[in-house]
Amino acid sequence: MSKIPYKTYLPEAQMPTQWQSLRADMKNCPPMLHPGTRQPVTLDDLRPVFVEELAKQELSDAKFIDIPGEVMDFYRMIRPSPLVRAYALEKALGTPARIYYKFEGTNTSGSHKLNSAVAQAYYAKQQGLTSLTTETGAGQWGTALSMACAYYGIDLSVYMVKISSEQKPYRKAVMETYKAKVTPSPSNTTNCGRAALAENPNSHGSLGNAISEALEVAMSTDNCRYVLGSVLQHVLLHQSVIGLEARAAMDSLEEYPDIVVGCAGGGSNLGGLIVTYASDKLLGKANPRIVAVEPASCPSLTRGRYAYDFGDTAMTTPLIKMYTMGSAFKPHENHAGGLRYHGMNTVMSQLKEDGLLEAIAVPQKSVFEAATLFARTEGTLPAPESAHAIRGAIDEALACKESGESKCILFGLSGTGYFDMQAYMDYNEGRMDDNIPDDATLANGFASIPG
Amino acid sequence: MSKIPYKTYLPEAQMPTQWQSLRADMKNCPPMLHPGTRQPVTLDDLRPVFVEELAKQELSDAKFIDIPGEVMDFYRMIRPSPLVRAYALEKALGTPARIYYKFEGTNTSGSHKLNSAVAQAYYAKQQGLTSLTTETGAGQWGTALSMACAYYGIDLSVYMVKISSEQKPYRKAVMETYKAKVTPSPSNTTNCGRAALAENPNSHGSLGNAISEALEVAMSTDNCRYVLGSVLQHVLLHQSVIGLEARAAMDSLEEYPDIVVGCAGGGSNLGGLIVTYASDKLLGKANPRIVAVEPASCPSLTRGRYAYDFGDTAMTTPLIKMYTMGSAFKPHENHAGGLRYHGMNTVMSQLKEDGLLEAIAVPQKSVFEAATLFARTEGTLPAPESAHAIRGAIDEALACKESGESKCILFGLSGTGYFDMQAYMDYNEGRMDDNIPDDATLANGFASIPG
Repeated sequence: MSKIPYKTYLPEAQMPTQWQSLRADMKNCPPMLHPGTRQPVTLDDLRPVFVEELAKQELSDAKFIDIPGEVMDFYRMIRPSPLVRAYALEKALGTPARIYYKFEGTNTSGSHKLNSAVAQAYYAKQQGLTSLTTETGAGQWGTALSMACAYYGIDLSVYMVKISSEQKPYRKAVMETYKAKVTPSPSNTTNCGRAALAENPNSHGSLGNAISEALEVAMSTDNCRYVLGSVLQHVLLHQSVIGLEARAAMDSLEEYPDIVVGCAGGGSNLGGLIVTYASDKLLGKANPRIVAVEPASCPSLTRGRYAYDFGDTAMTTPLIKMYTMGSAFKPHENHAGGLRYHGMNTVMSQLKEDGLLEAIAVPQKSVFEAATLFARTEGTLPAPESAHAIRGAIDEALACKESGESKCILFGLSGTGYFDMQAYMDYNEGRMDDNIPDDATLANGFASIPG
Repeated sequence: MSKIPYKTYLPEAQMPTQWQSLRADMKNCPPMLHPGTRQPVTLDDLRPVFVEELAKQELSDAKFIDIPGEVMDFYRMIRPSPLVRAYALEKALGTPARIYYKFEGTNTSGSHKLNSAVAQAYYAKQQGLTSLTTETGAGQWGTALSMACAYYGIDLSVYMVKISSEQKPYRKAVMETYKAKVTPSPSNTTNCGRAALAENPNSHGSLGNAISEALEVAMSTDNCRYVLGSVLQHVLLHQSVIGLEARAAMDSLEEYPDIVVGCAGGGSNLGGLIVTYASDKLLGKANPRIVAVEPASCPSLTRGRYAYDFGDTAMTTPLIKMYTMGSAFKPHENHAGGLRYHGMNTVMSQLKEDGLLEAIAVPQKSVFEAATLFARTEGTLPAPESAHAIRGAIDEALACKESGESKCILFGLSGTGYFDMQAYMDYNEGRMDDNIPDDATLANGFASIPG
């Protein structure tokens, strides 16, 4: 066999033209429930808040859904993303493992979030909506949605957690270059924002409050809906392009991973990456290990409970069955902002519950150690979120070095760290902590899970 | 003919394995002169300051030079870069022109500078050197060299213009993540730095002084040399990978550009992009238009003089024949930091003198207008430097719209603007000026050109 190239790009003609649902292969994935009736939510429940087509996808049982032509046009601008053989990292580790990563950070938004943002903005446009609202914490989702809305000509209002908008003024500037209106949250533009400010005029804001503000504006504005970038089924569906491309590229190299590793926040990147390999497991075709890596500071899969819980801290969403810390859980300020969510997508949670997905929690300093090694060898500066997957992959590769096995490891590198340099500075200068929650903090969170 | 794909990546096996020198096709390119003797510089003159192999390349007449295997290994990590068909931009402009761009910004350094940085660090390592020094203004070069030195295990000391290190702390953080020692200049670590501080303790620094500090340290440190990222022949040579890849990809699409457009600072990106097409002109094989786009605030090609001048403001380098504003010319503070050099590479200058290269100067606000349109349509946020080429390409495409001609336009997109968001904020908020120098300012600069 000829030497495997450093990077494999699928030819444009071989890019996937359908999204794939992993949930369609599962018999036991619990539905979202209406918090009042405790009955499965219906399209009528979701329609007032969500874009119609996205609500349908949220409830659909279809295994494959065609990607619309105009979304494919955008995907052809930003995709395929490269599948990279990590020769330099393998050499630095001295491992016999064969390490591959699927890199989603080459677009301007810097992450995989754009895969779903484009689809969501497109369906909004098709429905005749003129504006969308959303929230953003770390900023990746807000940036991605800004790009997509600029492309399709839709107005976008982003509620950005206030502390994040102050710490990341350049994230805000990118969104504004893409014409989004960015409002630090809590703000005085909504009732719930004003209430939060009345309670604490110096509030740093929270993702929960930003969601509430975005929801309030969407509900009270004509031709406007609320969209979000993780956790839900339709977002996982769109992110399947990651895994479908990765699978086609791996197949073309005649490689099948022994281990697939992804970072886990709300679960959309992980769910997208593993879609075909987890399907193989569900259908009994193959049995690769699938490893979710989460931050030790917000360990929903490894220390959380599998229960119905609210998706937001204001407890207004449908109930979602998930591994959760409880919606009242407050993780420490933590630079991997994209992995600070209290819960986990239902599909990922059920796979964990069924023993089909392993999960590990890693402390932040060990994550930045891995990120820095990766940057210096592979040449790409990873996002802190993505570096959790690097940590997981390195640990598996070092285990191969111990055992002498040449396993094939595939991991997802979901984005770049260009807008996270403050975190790198803190790490470089020894100002970073691991912030692992104690049992009392966990108990406080669990107490908020509805009975 | 089937539809041309959005992006064309050369297969790894077709990546160029030799650099190509454009100067080798020219009969009349003036040599660098020793400032004392006014005789052409020799290898012995260059050896104390420069890496031996780079000095040899600087003086070489060879048309092709093999790229070393270890440099090819690194190129395979960061290259090939995509050749992109700008369908969305064409549609937004309503032009019949076919617009292509070669995008060099997908690596972590964010620009084409890495192409030469890797080669320079490799040759330093081969020579047994243990450290290098350099200066950086905008930060692209310092970042690229930091990455290359981390990869090859060489210590790097970067003198960064003080105002730039203060305005771009995250650029500095990237370099430090790659283990470089970054010193704001002027500093008290060198004689010339101390002299500058004695004269003005609050000095913002200048590229000229940063060069002088880096040179002083290189000259006074064992196993250390000084390297730089533009203007000189060996840098143009390394950047030829841009043009060689672009040519191979364009050929594979059966496209030959009517117009090739590049931004021009020191000239290395432009020289790399145009190498094969300019060679065609020199050898009488074809006659595409070649257009250099420079900032109206620092217009060496359009308002400068073609003369022997010093490369640095301290007037210590060999004399270089170039279009120059004079080494004492001080452009306004200008966000396209990479295009603020007072002179222009000799090969580019001679092509201009011989009528083989056109040059235009564009005001900064029109550049950001083009950058913003490009970001919103093509989805990539360009560096301010690169956006000069976008401005030039858009203007040619609009001329095609006027005339109804479907010309083929190729331009170079040399990098991303992730670390230039302050400039975008200034533009978005109406705080940007064009800063076009008046005749008196030009006359002051010209007075510094040696007689």
